[in-house]
Amino acid sequence: MESVHRPRLTPARADIRRAVRELLPSKGLVLVGLSGGADSLALAAATAFEAGRAGIRAGAVIVDHNLQTGSADVAERAAVAARQLGLDPVLVLSVKVDSAGTGPEAAARTARYAAFDLALERTGASSVLLGHTLDDQAETVLLGLSRGSGPTSLRGMAARTGPILRPLLGIRRAQTRQFCADAGLEPWSDPQNFDPRYARVRVRETVLPLLENELGPGVGVALARTADALREDSDALDELARTMLQEHFANGKIATSVLASVPAAVRQRVIRFGVEAMCGVWLNRVQTLTVAALVTHWHGQGALSLPGIRVIRQDGILIFSAPGLT
Amino acid sequence: MESVHRPRLTPARADIRRAVRELLPSKGLVLVGLSGGADSLALAAATAFEAGRAGIRAGAVIVDHNLQTGSADVAERAAVAARQLGLDPVLVLSVKVDSAGTGPEAAARTARYAAFDLALERTGASSVLLGHTLDDQAETVLLGLSRGSGPTSLRGMAARTGPILRPLLGIRRAQTRQFCADAGLEPWSDPQNFDPRYARVRVRETVLPLLENELGPGVGVALARTADALREDSDALDELARTMLQEHFANGKIATSVLASVPAAVRQRVIRFGVEAMCGVWLNRVQTLTVAALVTHWHGQGALSLPGIRVIRQDGILIFSAPGLT
Repeated sequence: MESVHRPRLTPARADIRRAVRELLPSKGLVLVGLSGGADSLALAAATAFEAGRAGIRAGAVIVDHNLQTGSADVAERAAVAARQLGLDPVLVLSVKVDSAGTGPEAAARTARYAAFDLALERTGASSVLLGHTLDDQAETVLLGLSRGSGPTSLRGMAARTGPILRPLLGIRRAQTRQFCADAGLEPWSDPQNFDPRYARVRVRETVLPLLENELGPGVGVALARTADALREDSDALDELARTMLQEHFANGKIATSVLASVPAAVRQRVIRFGVEAMCGVWLNRVQTLTVAALVTHWHGQGALSLPGIRVIRQDGILIFSAPGLT
Repeated sequence: MESVHRPRLTPARADIRRAVRELLPSKGLVLVGLSGGADSLALAAATAFEAGRAGIRAGAVIVDHNLQTGSADVAERAAVAARQLGLDPVLVLSVKVDSAGTGPEAAARTARYAAFDLALERTGASSVLLGHTLDDQAETVLLGLSRGSGPTSLRGMAARTGPILRPLLGIRRAQTRQFCADAGLEPWSDPQNFDPRYARVRVRETVLPLLENELGPGVGVALARTADALREDSDALDELARTMLQEHFANGKIATSVLASVPAAVRQRVIRFGVEAMCGVWLNRVQTLTVAALVTHWHGQGALSLPGIRVIRQDGILIFSAPGLT
């Protein structure tokens, strides 16, 4: 019997490996986005194992954000761990985060995803696997809710967005920690994950635990499940609106009769997507409703001037024009 | 100058009166659903005033749930207040709440809405106005989220549902208290509103204040605004699904090709609405997805037995049958 020498297939390892297996492409090279934290370290180990079994190649991409002293050492430690897991190639990309304007969290995110794009290009890999868990999903929904930015921000993260794959969205964060413990892996604990200046940290450390305490332990799962359903709703309406836009929106013009014939949710999306396509501006809810009122509450309003766009109704036609375009 | 003798038109009174004015029908009789609490008392006073101005009639309906000792006295006190405000007729309806099965909150709600129906029938009124505020809406969204019951429960309350009107959904609860103070009205404070055995009370007293503290004071408004947008999305998809059901679902049968041709959000609604219409059962998300898998992940599954319904796929047709029906 060899079993005493083989690592045990604990529930956490079985669940995480199965989750990876279900999303893994059947050929080529994939990269794991590795920070060294428990989530991505468990993902890296499970991916190395499953890729080997499936006969495909798996590497890692490690992004050094240069935001904390010693970040190069942390990146190097993650690279060593990746190589020990048998991942190859292992890329360490050092990025510069420009937080002017959007704030440090959004800026770090933008820099990180740009680095993933670069890694895909350099290696010819088909996808980057990220370690976002069910808990991250629940936090995303709560953050979106608190901003009131509507269905778009509540939809949370998708398991598949272009080349980005998120196999662990059904896995609890605690399971990834257990995986690391079971596998004898030592995750890195990012001090930023405990810095209460970040809204996400406050949601994780204070808000979600209180919600689970007051409303029941299933809140995290419930939030994640809600995100799934909302994403489906939003996708369906987005699709309808984009079809309508293609068929009826040309040269910045669309007939009010077309917009009047569809439900409010579709009308507002057509307006938003049309404006975005024309001038790259994303209207908020209040601005969108002001434009929609030219259809739904018409009483001879004059031209609307919104950031980046001007809208006027003439002879039953909405005419959009972006200053600077003619 | 008479102004010292006239009640001041404070911001709270102006806002609440305007909100009532915007939803008030232009003729006939309306009833205010009055508990005697600050929300419904402010609504009653504003409705009496605005109805007088608009030349329509306004009465009140008070529901005695018989759940607390002294509830008849509370109802009588509310009736006196209603008459003093000039509301006429004033109905006091005593109901029996049967909390077996659904729990006390849901049972009280069912009894209350049945009483409103009865009041409409007896008086010939066109609508019942209810005092739900923006805070109630935010609480509803959080409760729905914590149950994970998806978009349907997140949609919150509509300003208009059949004969039920909710003019105060854009008004904060604090404004209704201020209205009462400004108008010299003494609201009744329901002890059940502070009973932490109710999930809604815990949301109101603990969860929302913490959210506002951790994530910013705009959380309540953000939740209510989210409900508006989600309600629009859900309504649009419901409409599409009902149209599809009418056109393609007959005798418990629908072609899988029809279900395969639409986005997941529409497909799942068609399945839910179809089952509900056949046997009055509302499938949850997991059950709905199991039925949808007969279309999306077909590999020769056998018949599905769900509560109240049996589903089988034969020759590209989904066949629904309810036990007991033939």
